[in-house]
Amino acid sequence: MTDKALQDYYPDDYAHCYGCGRLNEGGLQLKSHWDGEESVCHFTPKSYHTGGFPGSVYGGLIGSLMDCHAAATAAAARLREDGFSLGDQSLSRFVTASLKVDFLRPTPMGKVLELRGRVKEIKVRKAIVVITLSAEGKVCAQGEAVMVQLPESRAK
Amino acid sequence: MTDKALQDYYPDDYAHCYGCGRLNEGGLQLKSHWDGEESVCHFTPKSYHTGGFPGSVYGGLIGSLMDCHAAATAAAARLREDGFSLGDQSLSRFVTASLKVDFLRPTPMGKVLELRGRVKEIKVRKAIVVITLSAEGKVCAQGEAVMVQLPESRAK
Repeated sequence: MTDKALQDYYPDDYAHCYGCGRLNEGGLQLKSHWDGEESVCHFTPKSYHTGGFPGSVYGGLIGSLMDCHAAATAAAARLREDGFSLGDQSLSRFVTASLKVDFLRPTPMGKVLELRGRVKEIKVRKAIVVITLSAEGKVCAQGEAVMVQLPESRAK
Repeated sequence: MTDKALQDYYPDDYAHCYGCGRLNEGGLQLKSHWDGEESVCHFTPKSYHTGGFPGSVYGGLIGSLMDCHAAATAAAARLREDGFSLGDQSLSRFVTASLKVDFLRPTPMGKVLELRGRVKEIKVRKAIVVITLSAEGKVCAQGEAVMVQLPESRAK
């Protein structure tokens, strides 16, 4: 894993996402990396990211983390499929066509969350990414995102 | 519609949700109401709730709003099914078993978003709620949430 995250390769115009834009100072600034064939990301919720019952992480945050991690995974996988390495050109932007999240067990507060992404299918402008979210080694939620590339965000 | 929102009837222990807890000062404080057979909620994203490309609302926020609106809709529908009115007893807490969101078109920034919820199925401890999110009268996203009641949150 390098220090520079996948999201650090988005062009400036596509780097204002609340979840993962490096230029969004009020956002979550999610950072993902390749770890072999999987993408990985760690995030520690803030004290106010509580869910509907005591001690649990907010489900909307879990979906948000999956969404951004899937977008970066799709863009980085597209780059790799095209025969480039990170840094050869900027990442294109994938947006979410659909996201399904299954909440398997409560996600505990006060822990580092680990998200892992795997590309299930990749086509020219579309990718399906499956994501798990774990705390203390236990999978708490899993998701599947259908991501679509924005043509105007492709490197010229 | 009354001034008091559905979320205002959650017991204190279940009112710290980042999305809709009235006691979470750092949260979004989402407020939903009945409008006949549908539930409705309005929310204006903050300037930092931007998505992956210019002018669009963050998809993770859209999923979050749907999640909380569906939870309140399920709890209020359960209360109604049990023959009670709002205020007769506190709302029980429903948590999300799964949420699927389809993003149909970009959701524009700078607009009031309207969410509408409809109960598709309701059982003793489970409800399925379908949600639309619109801006300027156009549906931008639709969702389906499977919600499950926390037994310990039921009024004694």
